[in-house]
Amino acid sequence: MEPAYVELKERLAEVMDILKTRALLGWDQQVKMPPGGGPVRAEQLATLDRLAHERFTSPEIGRLLDRLEGFEASLPYESDEASLVRVVRQDWEKARRIPSDLRAEMSRASSLALPVWVEARQTSDYSLFRPHFEHNLELRRRYVECFDGYAEPYDALLDDFERGMTAAEVRAVFERLKEEQVPLVAAAASEGERPARDRHYPLEAQQRFELKVIERFGYDPQSWRLDPTVHPFANSVAIDDIRLTTRYHETNLDGLFATMHECGHGLYEHGVSRTLERTPLARGTSLGLHESQSRMWENLVGRSLPFWRFFYPQLQEHFPEALADVELDDWYRSVNWVQPSFIRVEADEATYNLHVILRFELEQELLVGDVSLDDLPGVWNERMLAYLGVEPPEDRVGVLQDMHWAGGHIGYFSTYALGNVISAQIWERVLEDIPDLYDQFEAGEFGALRTWLVEHLHRHGRKFTPKETLERVVGGPIDAGPYLRYLRDKLAVAA
Amino acid sequence: MEPAYVELKERLAEVMDILKTRALLGWDQQVKMPPGGGPVRAEQLATLDRLAHERFTSPEIGRLLDRLEGFEASLPYESDEASLVRVVRQDWEKARRIPSDLRAEMSRASSLALPVWVEARQTSDYSLFRPHFEHNLELRRRYVECFDGYAEPYDALLDDFERGMTAAEVRAVFERLKEEQVPLVAAAASEGERPARDRHYPLEAQQRFELKVIERFGYDPQSWRLDPTVHPFANSVAIDDIRLTTRYHETNLDGLFATMHECGHGLYEHGVSRTLERTPLARGTSLGLHESQSRMWENLVGRSLPFWRFFYPQLQEHFPEALADVELDDWYRSVNWVQPSFIRVEADEATYNLHVILRFELEQELLVGDVSLDDLPGVWNERMLAYLGVEPPEDRVGVLQDMHWAGGHIGYFSTYALGNVISAQIWERVLEDIPDLYDQFEAGEFGALRTWLVEHLHRHGRKFTPKETLERVVGGPIDAGPYLRYLRDKLAVAA
Repeated sequence: MEPAYVELKERLAEVMDILKTRALLGWDQQVKMPPGGGPVRAEQLATLDRLAHERFTSPEIGRLLDRLEGFEASLPYESDEASLVRVVRQDWEKARRIPSDLRAEMSRASSLALPVWVEARQTSDYSLFRPHFEHNLELRRRYVECFDGYAEPYDALLDDFERGMTAAEVRAVFERLKEEQVPLVAAAASEGERPARDRHYPLEAQQRFELKVIERFGYDPQSWRLDPTVHPFANSVAIDDIRLTTRYHETNLDGLFATMHECGHGLYEHGVSRTLERTPLARGTSLGLHESQSRMWENLVGRSLPFWRFFYPQLQEHFPEALADVELDDWYRSVNWVQPSFIRVEADEATYNLHVILRFELEQELLVGDVSLDDLPGVWNERMLAYLGVEPPEDRVGVLQDMHWAGGHIGYFSTYALGNVISAQIWERVLEDIPDLYDQFEAGEFGALRTWLVEHLHRHGRKFTPKETLERVVGGPIDAGPYLRYLRDKLAVAA
Repeated sequence: MEPAYVELKERLAEVMDILKTRALLGWDQQVKMPPGGGPVRAEQLATLDRLAHERFTSPEIGRLLDRLEGFEASLPYESDEASLVRVVRQDWEKARRIPSDLRAEMSRASSLALPVWVEARQTSDYSLFRPHFEHNLELRRRYVECFDGYAEPYDALLDDFERGMTAAEVRAVFERLKEEQVPLVAAAASEGERPARDRHYPLEAQQRFELKVIERFGYDPQSWRLDPTVHPFANSVAIDDIRLTTRYHETNLDGLFATMHECGHGLYEHGVSRTLERTPLARGTSLGLHESQSRMWENLVGRSLPFWRFFYPQLQEHFPEALADVELDDWYRSVNWVQPSFIRVEADEATYNLHVILRFELEQELLVGDVSLDDLPGVWNERMLAYLGVEPPEDRVGVLQDMHWAGGHIGYFSTYALGNVISAQIWERVLEDIPDLYDQFEAGEFGALRTWLVEHLHRHGRKFTPKETLERVVGGPIDAGPYLRYLRDKLAVAA
């Protein structure tokens, strides 16, 4: 093997060790760390960020990339080797524009903001959170200034999550969604009383049941963990060290859907080719593609009728008191209930995108100063009324509900709705290739779906851009059509 | 403040962030990591070790230390600043003799050996573990060769755990212990049937009870965690992020004593002055001093009669079935039972040091080649017979019982017995200063003891060498006398 390539891989492996360690620090911070550890943890995270950034942006890596131009050109575009050189060159050219100090300050600021956000949300006190958000926003503006060549400030942020996508492209997709989903929601909102609400679902039985589900999806204790947390997320410390987190409420089974969602993320990370381990290609190619996987397992699988035909009898066994008088059809109606509400993570499939579009618009307006932080809670509430027909009575269930802005993640939300859109595009292809897919679900079999996804999507990791990846998987660009078709079909059935 | 000192502190803070992150990786590896994560974790640990070592041994730190000679001399010896410069200079001069490659290889080898040791112990298959131990030993020999000025190879290894102490000094203490403890054990072994054996102690009640105990010692969920693991240990990710681990058996309460033991370690780390956070002084000064704290809380507190006068009624409430017919005196006899046995971590106070002395001798003999790895299991068993009068029937309860050699920790065991010795020296001083100490225990009060330990020992962290620290706390050098006095008194009472 080309010596410069061997050296590049060694240097990248070191950077990845630091970044994966950082991922574990973040997981621990949210799942296991005693609160007293917070201030020092913020320093530890900032130090690892700085180290990874310094090592990655070193001139040595640049020289190796230069030396590998011929090597790259001599190999097929889709080979691991050519892909690594190509993607790392893009990453390197982007990353070296960010001063290490700014990177460390962004990390430190978000670590310090997170506990404040937790308290602000608990007490519904926006004024507590506001200065931290302001600092995060200011840091993002400085981040945007490190680049030229982006048409809009938002583009520079979005590119971190969705390489090569622009605000304009997202806007085109979202305008079509908004246009069709706002009236669809108004027309489709379920009527009457939602079945099986406010029952008692003991936590221990929830944990047992959801493990039964995700073990059929591919969860395996040999390489996975599942822990409770405040805000569910999935994390990969290695291809064979996947961490899912979820949360439980005794009065509903929302936690089950959160768990299926995070399992979808985990399957993507776990499905990456082992040949890419300890390289920057060993993860999902973008947050949009990632979200397509989590939303697929949560919704297209986990809210489908065939899925529940198989699992509902087991669910009743786990919750005999709560579900004795609930028929399968009622249960299916319940988990597909359409009801505009305040909280994004609890939103149904029909309203979810509207929550995201609201955030996408506000982030752009905040970045360029069209909306001020003083006005933000009010604008949030006005727009909730316009898009969803409901107005949050307090900021706890309004502008303070998500952790993203505390964590400094601006430009991130849009990928959730892109994920929904992409999930339906992929689903149409899956159904073409596996015509008896729903029969398999009814038999409790999900292996063919998982294998299809590994083969067509997961194993490639970050070798291709989101656009290239989507082109490979579905044969075309992003398109809101399949999702809107899926939604209209589903609402017609469930209504 | 002196600019060179500020820069030194910043550089050291970065190194400490890496090392504390490494501590978390190690904790996670043993407590939370899915087994599949093992191979990549080994790489991550090796990378962090190498990074910390490179950063710490950089010429810049050497130049800063040179520039700070006058600054150091201008300040009191016991000031934080002079202590930091003094101790870091010693550390730096030692550390820069170790090539980064050797450091990384030591780390990687131990990560790879640990799961093999787990399997070897389970199957009692020494041949599985032998090549890994051989590699670890070879790496330690190469480590020893990095130094000159040590009288014996063991000295170089011991110095990492007990700065400034020599094998000859340990030998002098251990010879006295062996001389007195071997006949003492033979004479004092308890007779009849041990009370309260083989009862059923439900795990959940054990967890509840031990939290009640250690919360009175100083455990606080704001800054501490307690988790189950295979081999109990304590870890500090920050002064306010202390991780204890323990293990539970349904047939006995050994886990309670393990928890009190680890809590003693945690209190030392948690008691370090906050002014030392993120410096290399923010931990216990040596493993011997550390073990003096864990053994003190486990034995001098946790196996004392006044402690049980307070806690035994609560213990009975937690285990009404197991302990209904057991009187306090019987319980006290049970937890102080003297009985030579195979397993060090389950050994009573009277026999414990003999387990350690055996390992201390074998390590020296292995290092210089007087005992071969082929002969090791046999020699182990022979010596068990000579010192303790019992011979392990299989390696699982013999040479394979401890994880230390898998982790590459050679020179470590002796600090356990040194800790016992030191604990009794400190205890005599505590009793002088707090004459009603045992009355306080009977009232469930342990705050005065904890405060005394913070004031006299914990807060100094690593500012002073183990010898200086001991001199400050007890007014003299290490001395086996108090421990032998304590043991003879206790055995006379308990017999």
